[in-house]
Amino acid sequence: MSEATRNRIMEAARALSYVPSEAGRSLSTKATKRIGVVSAELTNPFFPQLIEPMREGLEKRGYRTLLITDRAENPLEIGLLADGSLDGVILTTATLGSSLPHELASRRIPFVLVNREIDSIAADTCVMDNRSGAEQVAQLLIRLGHRRVGAIFGPQETSTGRDREVGLRAGLSEVGVSLPRNLTRRGPFSYETGHRAMRELLDNPTPPAAVFCGNDVIALGAHSAAIGRGLRLPRDLTIVGFDDIAMASWESFGLTTVRCDFTAMAEAAVGMLLKRIKQPSLPHQRQVLSPRLVLRGTHGPPAS
Amino acid sequence: MSEATRNRIMEAARALSYVPSEAGRSLSTKATKRIGVVSAELTNPFFPQLIEPMREGLEKRGYRTLLITDRAENPLEIGLLADGSLDGVILTTATLGSSLPHELASRRIPFVLVNREIDSIAADTCVMDNRSGAEQVAQLLIRLGHRRVGAIFGPQETSTGRDREVGLRAGLSEVGVSLPRNLTRRGPFSYETGHRAMRELLDNPTPPAAVFCGNDVIALGAHSAAIGRGLRLPRDLTIVGFDDIAMASWESFGLTTVRCDFTAMAEAAVGMLLKRIKQPSLPHQRQVLSPRLVLRGTHGPPAS
Repeated sequence: MSEATRNRIMEAARALSYVPSEAGRSLSTKATKRIGVVSAELTNPFFPQLIEPMREGLEKRGYRTLLITDRAENPLEIGLLADGSLDGVILTTATLGSSLPHELASRRIPFVLVNREIDSIAADTCVMDNRSGAEQVAQLLIRLGHRRVGAIFGPQETSTGRDREVGLRAGLSEVGVSLPRNLTRRGPFSYETGHRAMRELLDNPTPPAAVFCGNDVIALGAHSAAIGRGLRLPRDLTIVGFDDIAMASWESFGLTTVRCDFTAMAEAAVGMLLKRIKQPSLPHQRQVLSPRLVLRGTHGPPAS
Repeated sequence: MSEATRNRIMEAARALSYVPSEAGRSLSTKATKRIGVVSAELTNPFFPQLIEPMREGLEKRGYRTLLITDRAENPLEIGLLADGSLDGVILTTATLGSSLPHELASRRIPFVLVNREIDSIAADTCVMDNRSGAEQVAQLLIRLGHRRVGAIFGPQETSTGRDREVGLRAGLSEVGVSLPRNLTRRGPFSYETGHRAMRELLDNPTPPAAVFCGNDVIALGAHSAAIGRGLRLPRDLTIVGFDDIAMASWESFGLTTVRCDFTAMAEAAVGMLLKRIKQPSLPHQRQVLSPRLVLRGTHGPPAS
């Protein structure tokens, strides 16, 4: 096609408000320039904070983000991801028993696991060292003199929930502190989990002096429940979270927590996925980011 | 095609893990069963709360939600919405000068304005009565005895920012209370806006005794700034928000605010859009929902 012909066509297209049809384009090139990001409810503030930098990173590289929600009540079907409309998938919410990664792998759809991982599959993965983060919390509590420690863990069928529990228990048991069964609770990573569990822990005849929470959203629920009972932090109670979402730094909470670098995690995930799309046969990568304690205002020595 | 042939084809397709190609299907039927939802940053918790019930409502009716972000720094181009991949669009963030609604209308792409509206276009619209909500706040402040009132408004180029400001001023001026210029601030609907503005207001030689905030996210920033200065609410300061997002009800805040029914708004928007897709020539509808005050723990009489 000559330059002049091309120009005349482009001009006519502009005059007619023509926009290239993605449907037509995908049939010819097979690339859709669309990436599916699978997340849990967006009303859980953890996910927007992880997803926003992924969306930005993908946008910079010319990809659009299709956000798809996967919920326990209504699990995502593979058909939604494998209908040819996506060049690749980022999974942020895989549970240890998820079949989705296996189904993506068997269909040769490029994907990356971020935030949560699965032991049973070889896949590109980017996660925090959750165990080390929780061990750091255990060491902090011990340094402060805590012996009566409680915990509100996330779900055991997620690698984040499992590894943070393992880390806390390991760190405490090194100095002979154990977690009594009546001071531990477990539930989904939600405000409601933290709120309900903290009320139960406070109803205990000898309530805990410090409570580790499986993530910040749980910790914010626990914080609210403690405030609702008239407690003042950290004078009456120590609460430590995990993730360092934006809200943790608000003066209204001043939550002591473990920082996960969402931007670094998002960038690593986007980079891995685009590499995988270009070179499907590359060996799989597993990247582990190191968390660190952020000391704010919800930790202190036990009330004497 | 005979039933037996169809069955043999379906069986072969299953054996080959075949999933219908959306790209192929869209070319033949023109319907993609995809709806674009345009929102601002998801890290602003207002948007997830509005979007989640829309996504659910669309899912129930067999539609997938493609979430697309429109940001001031990187405004959305019409090409992203008009490439044939969407059956319709829900706009949650239109500013008064937005060209997007006009471009969608001229391309005959079904769309609905929700949360924010635009005067210059005939379109299906679902909004709160923002003016009446802010008037109710003015009446509350007056009943409590407040005369030294400040405000942190949202952007004037949004109908929500504009109408809430108009309502507050109208309600106050009915009883002869005015908003001094040095006690008003304005900015994007963000935590940072509220945090910075509240610090400035508190630096005033005679700070306000009550502050109206353009939305809850601004109010949470203002709350944090006040706590950071050692103030106790409502003893030292009254703060009232707008929206009643989930966080407003947390005991850590106990924010007095104006309730907008997100679920009703989302359902109305989904209903209008699907009607419009079926019957493009229907007359346009405008639905206005009534807000109501929610009295929690951040309002009280001025310190004497």
